[in-house]
Amino acid sequence: MTKYVYDFAEGSRDMKDLLGGKGANLSEMTNLGLPVPPGFVITTEACTAYLSSGSVPEALAAEVTSHLEALEATMGKKLGQADDPLLVSVRSGAKFSMPGMMDTVLNIGLNDASVLGLAKQGDERFAWDSYRRLLQMFGKTVLGVDGELFEHAHDEAKKQRGTTNDLDLDAAALQQLVETFKGIVRDATGQDFPQDPREQMDLATRAVFDSWNGERARLYRRQERIPADLGTAVNVCSMVFGNLGMDSGTGVAFTRDPSSGAQGVYGDYLQNAQGEDVVAGIRNTLPLQDLEGLDKTSYDELMGIMSTLEHHYRDLCDIEFTIERGKLWMLQTRVGKRTAGAAFRIATQLVDEGLIELDEALLRVNGAQLAQLMFPRFGSTDGAKKLTKGMGASPGAAVGKAVFSSAAAEEWAARGEDVILVRRETNPDDLSGMIAARGILTSRGGKTSHAAVVARGMGKTCVCGAEELEVSTSSRTITLRDGSVVNEGDVLSIDGTTGEVFAGEVAVAPSQVVEYFETGAVGDDDLVQAVDRLIRHADGARRLRVRTNADTAEDAQRARRFGAEGIGLCRTEHMFLGDRRQLVEDLILADTDDERTAALDALLPLQRSDFLEILRAMDGLPVTVRLIDPPLHEFLPDLTELTVEVCVAEAKGEVPDPKRVRLLEEVRRLHEMNPMLGLRGVRLGLVIPGLFALQVRALALAAKQLKDEGLDPRPEVMVPLVGAVQELELVREESEKILAEVGIEAPIGTMIEVPRAALTAGQVAEAAEFFSFGTNDLTQMGWGFSRDDVEAAFFSRYLDLGIFGVSPFESLDRDGVGRLVRIAAEEGRRTRPDLHLGVCGEHGGDPDSVHFFHEVGLDYVSCSPFRVPVARLEAGRAALEATGSDTR
Amino acid sequence: MTKYVYDFAEGSRDMKDLLGGKGANLSEMTNLGLPVPPGFVITTEACTAYLSSGSVPEALAAEVTSHLEALEATMGKKLGQADDPLLVSVRSGAKFSMPGMMDTVLNIGLNDASVLGLAKQGDERFAWDSYRRLLQMFGKTVLGVDGELFEHAHDEAKKQRGTTNDLDLDAAALQQLVETFKGIVRDATGQDFPQDPREQMDLATRAVFDSWNGERARLYRRQERIPADLGTAVNVCSMVFGNLGMDSGTGVAFTRDPSSGAQGVYGDYLQNAQGEDVVAGIRNTLPLQDLEGLDKTSYDELMGIMSTLEHHYRDLCDIEFTIERGKLWMLQTRVGKRTAGAAFRIATQLVDEGLIELDEALLRVNGAQLAQLMFPRFGSTDGAKKLTKGMGASPGAAVGKAVFSSAAAEEWAARGEDVILVRRETNPDDLSGMIAARGILTSRGGKTSHAAVVARGMGKTCVCGAEELEVSTSSRTITLRDGSVVNEGDVLSIDGTTGEVFAGEVAVAPSQVVEYFETGAVGDDDLVQAVDRLIRHADGARRLRVRTNADTAEDAQRARRFGAEGIGLCRTEHMFLGDRRQLVEDLILADTDDERTAALDALLPLQRSDFLEILRAMDGLPVTVRLIDPPLHEFLPDLTELTVEVCVAEAKGEVPDPKRVRLLEEVRRLHEMNPMLGLRGVRLGLVIPGLFALQVRALALAAKQLKDEGLDPRPEVMVPLVGAVQELELVREESEKILAEVGIEAPIGTMIEVPRAALTAGQVAEAAEFFSFGTNDLTQMGWGFSRDDVEAAFFSRYLDLGIFGVSPFESLDRDGVGRLVRIAAEEGRRTRPDLHLGVCGEHGGDPDSVHFFHEVGLDYVSCSPFRVPVARLEAGRAALEATGSDTR
Repeated sequence: MTKYVYDFAEGSRDMKDLLGGKGANLSEMTNLGLPVPPGFVITTEACTAYLSSGSVPEALAAEVTSHLEALEATMGKKLGQADDPLLVSVRSGAKFSMPGMMDTVLNIGLNDASVLGLAKQGDERFAWDSYRRLLQMFGKTVLGVDGELFEHAHDEAKKQRGTTNDLDLDAAALQQLVETFKGIVRDATGQDFPQDPREQMDLATRAVFDSWNGERARLYRRQERIPADLGTAVNVCSMVFGNLGMDSGTGVAFTRDPSSGAQGVYGDYLQNAQGEDVVAGIRNTLPLQDLEGLDKTSYDELMGIMSTLEHHYRDLCDIEFTIERGKLWMLQTRVGKRTAGAAFRIATQLVDEGLIELDEALLRVNGAQLAQLMFPRFGSTDGAKKLTKGMGASPGAAVGKAVFSSAAAEEWAARGEDVILVRRETNPDDLSGMIAARGILTSRGGKTSHAAVVARGMGKTCVCGAEELEVSTSSRTITLRDGSVVNEGDVLSIDGTTGEVFAGEVAVAPSQVVEYFETGAVGDDDLVQAVDRLIRHADGARRLRVRTNADTAEDAQRARRFGAEGIGLCRTEHMFLGDRRQLVEDLILADTDDERTAALDALLPLQRSDFLEILRAMDGLPVTVRLIDPPLHEFLPDLTELTVEVCVAEAKGEVPDPKRVRLLEEVRRLHEMNPMLGLRGVRLGLVIPGLFALQVRALALAAKQLKDEGLDPRPEVMVPLVGAVQELELVREESEKILAEVGIEAPIGTMIEVPRAALTAGQVAEAAEFFSFGTNDLTQMGWGFSRDDVEAAFFSRYLDLGIFGVSPFESLDRDGVGRLVRIAAEEGRRTRPDLHLGVCGEHGGDPDSVHFFHEVGLDYVSCSPFRVPVARLEAGRAALEATGSDTR
Repeated sequence: MTKYVYDFAEGSRDMKDLLGGKGANLSEMTNLGLPVPPGFVITTEACTAYLSSGSVPEALAAEVTSHLEALEATMGKKLGQADDPLLVSVRSGAKFSMPGMMDTVLNIGLNDASVLGLAKQGDERFAWDSYRRLLQMFGKTVLGVDGELFEHAHDEAKKQRGTTNDLDLDAAALQQLVETFKGIVRDATGQDFPQDPREQMDLATRAVFDSWNGERARLYRRQERIPADLGTAVNVCSMVFGNLGMDSGTGVAFTRDPSSGAQGVYGDYLQNAQGEDVVAGIRNTLPLQDLEGLDKTSYDELMGIMSTLEHHYRDLCDIEFTIERGKLWMLQTRVGKRTAGAAFRIATQLVDEGLIELDEALLRVNGAQLAQLMFPRFGSTDGAKKLTKGMGASPGAAVGKAVFSSAAAEEWAARGEDVILVRRETNPDDLSGMIAARGILTSRGGKTSHAAVVARGMGKTCVCGAEELEVSTSSRTITLRDGSVVNEGDVLSIDGTTGEVFAGEVAVAPSQVVEYFETGAVGDDDLVQAVDRLIRHADGARRLRVRTNADTAEDAQRARRFGAEGIGLCRTEHMFLGDRRQLVEDLILADTDDERTAALDALLPLQRSDFLEILRAMDGLPVTVRLIDPPLHEFLPDLTELTVEVCVAEAKGEVPDPKRVRLLEEVRRLHEMNPMLGLRGVRLGLVIPGLFALQVRALALAAKQLKDEGLDPRPEVMVPLVGAVQELELVREESEKILAEVGIEAPIGTMIEVPRAALTAGQVAEAAEFFSFGTNDLTQMGWGFSRDDVEAAFFSRYLDLGIFGVSPFESLDRDGVGRLVRIAAEEGRRTRPDLHLGVCGEHGGDPDSVHFFHEVGLDYVSCSPFRVPVARLEAGRAALEATGSDTR
């Protein structure tokens, strides 16, 4: 027969599935001999049985009865007994902490009779206050009465007595309030508040079960991808009271400083109070140290317990405790949250203290924390004038003069000014300005807009979608809601983490961790030392190699310093922009083969020198060059703008420039309804003769020159947007011929970014020496939504509705897109066992995704330079996790 | 040890894998005791061994020697023997007929010595002509010499003798020509023509092997999806000569009329000629009947053989034969090609003759043939003035007066005129005009353009992409290349099969088969009788149900007459067009909840009446209604046009209409980079409160009204563009509430058109009672290309390159998109065994795709009304094929 109820003494911290997190930790403490108020746990299995059948399992009542009787025997009093009642709390506790779930119900067992018994134990006011609290909590969370009704009545009572302090209500006032509360319950539910203590307990238990399917809980589960069939456990715990006088109290504490990791006493204590009073913040708490003076015995005991817990859990713990008339009780413990810096410090401290091994220390930190440590931050913003708050799209802190065009950004930066590039939104033409700027501020677009994506790639601070700002690039001003204006040259400070925008200069503190990566110097800062130890340990542990996405020699060099072991994605699009735009226009407008050849020939030496510098920067390491990917019309003017230009000229009776008219024709011809799904990538290469050949030849010639110089260039040719092996075969044939002519060997492979390529990977691998998963496009096509369009339009709504827990562009969707990756990896390797596998989408730098890529057996991830250390760390953690160390 | 060579007597028609089609059929005839010139087949396995290792298998030479010796013994002479040579032909023959492969090499065994021996056998001219032919064929196909060099020399020789007739070259002239040809070979290859007969044979064999990887063969294989590793067999056959005098000759014949299926004698005969002369068409052939007068013995023998073959193959056969000095030889046979009408007639004739069963008869016809029979055609176009040729986008023949707008089409049609709607390209606004017109002609767009897709859906004749026509809708003219003009009201005739456009009226013959489907009356036409028999047999055999895609009551009624068993896809987009556009604009521009609600409320009764008529037309059968799918901006004006309008007004110093300016703002806001991947389908439903609810309520109310009338409405609610089960859960929850309120039950399901939905079908099925595969979008997203953009841009190039054999929008791509369908079907059913599965993309009416859908176990296909009979036929064939009947 299934056992539905466990005494705390029967459980342990390994039983979270069955007892929930809270119950498991209470059991653990009980078995450590710590002073936990006696109690028991009703299992998650009882909950799931109730939820699937609609009724409480038959066996449960008897089990609860026998455990309750045991509890009553231990405590020497009975639940709700009239003269000296046993009171209990009923609390939910699922395997994973779920803030959306119902709260605690305290003081169960009180009724019109036992409240008098409790009062007789010494404190009449306390007894009526406890009953008042039960009515309020029970009414709200179990009976579903609107909580404001109680609060309003409570406020009313205080008002009548001319006070705002709860403590100013005496026993009589509280007794009267109890009557009022009972009336509220009666009015709202049509029934009296249940007087039977066991009925109270059973109803509260059922309410906890039901709360598992409450709206907020379901939303939370959808967002966090917590399975809906886990259920929650119910903790029934004998009450202890911190509000029995000045020798009682309640507090929270950490076993070491969660901000710095420093060892010491950290916590708060509130005399004559229950836990909820601490949260409500009505009275100021005392620092925990002060407890020593108030109650040395309890204080010493608490210090001992905290040391026990830290040694037992081998980690920072946070705890809740209550002192009832000088007797210390432990109400909760768990491994405590901490800041990013503290995580690194504590992990290495615990190693030095001999509590954990380095492997485990590495599992105690994560890439998101490391990323946080790599961004500069504003020191204090006190006194700074905040203009607005947009979206924090790329973290960091940047200060500079506002400029409104890419050209101005370059010009001002060239003369040594720090600038913030301000645009409504950015496009590929703004690239040089974004490089020149300290930060980017846009009034349009979300976290995956062009500005955000490129800025994150550069590790450059960016605030997006600051919609309250009206940006005019023509008048070079930002107009605020209040009518005030920011002019070109005015100093702005933007915080890419919080999205805040300030007028004037706010002081910035640079990241010591970045300095460490840039220089390799550890120094004597304990945080840098901790990062150094753990990242080196990760490098030793990981199987995944880490490459970088870099299109310039500068990026390549920086990434190398950050530990990149090659370039996984060198985009060639920017090589067609800037000065070269005219050549590309010539190419597109070419009417004859000769004109096209001439345009291609003119581009060849330029491309060659681009590749030369990148290959040189990555000498001895692989450089995967992606042949040109975007549709040609991206290199031409905008259709609407050009149409307006021509039509307006006509309307004014002018003769429009025939060259512009000719260009408009071409723009119209090349215009696509869905450029993302249009003539791009390998399709372009197969339709425009000589385009891919130009690029392969430029790459081969660059490699040849370096080889002749005695260097070790390792180019790789990557074909984008392949959907069928036949496409790749054709490009491979042409490319191999060129490589052979120049005398260079280079592996030829493909992006896997079209779902069909993944689904037919067994065929595609016949023509590919490597696959590089383009998870950005794979996500777009797998979900059928375009980043450019949908994020702003509905992602926030989808997050609200719980359809996503996190944007699939940020963290790889394992079930859908991940399945394509898995299929392609498995079936590609079945065809070609030595097929090299990597990922070059932005997910390559996302901690959670890195673990997935490790699991499916990729050889490397590639990410933006600033994400390289993050990926190194996570790749090490992934390898350790896979070998079975526990991460939770 | 592998056996590489088979005597004809050792083979059979079942050995096509090993012996190729030609060899297998020659073997079959040999074993039937028919007069086949003795010979042997070198297997495809010898070919693949050669191709993979680069050299002929060692054992092959000895096997060929022993078979050659046996052949020589049978024939009583040796290959190339000087006094009386045995000559052989060497011919390729793969499993599947491949027109791109190399041709026959005849007369192998002739050299400078044996040509004299052959001459001594009686005919000197014949001997030198044969040697001349060998040099020419061998030179061109084995040695790779430019064929024009030989032809030029041949023409030169005739010119010298003042003739153009080959027969006017006498022995001496031919002897001289042989010397010239040998010189050509020497000059081109640097080597003499090989004199060793066995070397000739071996070189020809190797050339045939190599031809398997020739450019044309590879292209053909790519297009036809013939595996590259099959290889070709080589047929070595003793020569017989039809050019030994007037008692010799060669011919081709069919065992019955391939156009009508009528029994009789059909073929051509040419005296004193070899097969290539018939093809060259130098002399006129005789009707086969004339052979009876020339050579009654051979004629009677041939008739007997043809009867034997037809009974043996139980089908129409075509044959090639040669008569050598009064002796009949069979050179080839195969099951013959035939017209669509003949296919139906012959299949039922063979049943009546007791040769095959009805099951097999059904497998002998196909849906493509039935579709052909359903279109009206022009009778004779002799004398008609052809204006141009575009793409035949939707078959049929249509005649009417040219009109240039949807409004004009409606207006003219309303007063009884037949019209052809002429547009540069069509869009959803043209729908009513397309309905009113007899045919549609566009100057832009390909076979999957809006015009083409909609026209095919309506079964309406359409010619697309007639690029030579300059269409001006403002002046209502078509201007031709030669400057001539077609005005509104001028009569045009367009052929949707050939793409031809004629000036004036060309007489049209309606389809009797359509009349049969419309009325159900069989009559005494033998074609209609045959169709009736076979489609009824298909209905009895098929497991797949056939539904239709229909958005109006008229379409629904017609489809029902055509045998549709429900509606698989009722699009609701058009319900937001036309008069209702203003309401939709109000909805989009709504600033407040009240305004939005008002707009939705105004739409409700309109939607309800739409659904009412459709449900009534399909009473008792399921009607799957798809909630609105396209992005909202499709219902608003074009961004560029509206921008120009506003900017031009400004440029002229006018104040633009503020309503248009407000509209422009909204159009800009809703503008999407990639609408296909934008805010549409379920995303729209979740973002615009009340939109889906309106539609579900309208449907439920319509169903309720019909139920109250005593009818049996069977609505189904289909949610488009679902990518995650969470989306569907939310819509289901809302819809179920509404259905319950109204008191209607309706299954709720989803399109599977986003790859992720297929990949997570096991989850999606938890919230879906049915899946309907939207294979159009699934193809777009699976391949990552948009129909709107890529077809014109690169599909023709891809077909040329052999990347596609057929557009994946026409026939389902089994390996990629089909795999998604298979995954979703399997995993959906694993979650919900009674999950109903159908397909509503255009592939539902494509013959090949229907077989796939049967294989993967779908319950139904849904297609346009005119495709319903095709789908019924193919569904029946698919069921029979699956039970193991042979289709080849």
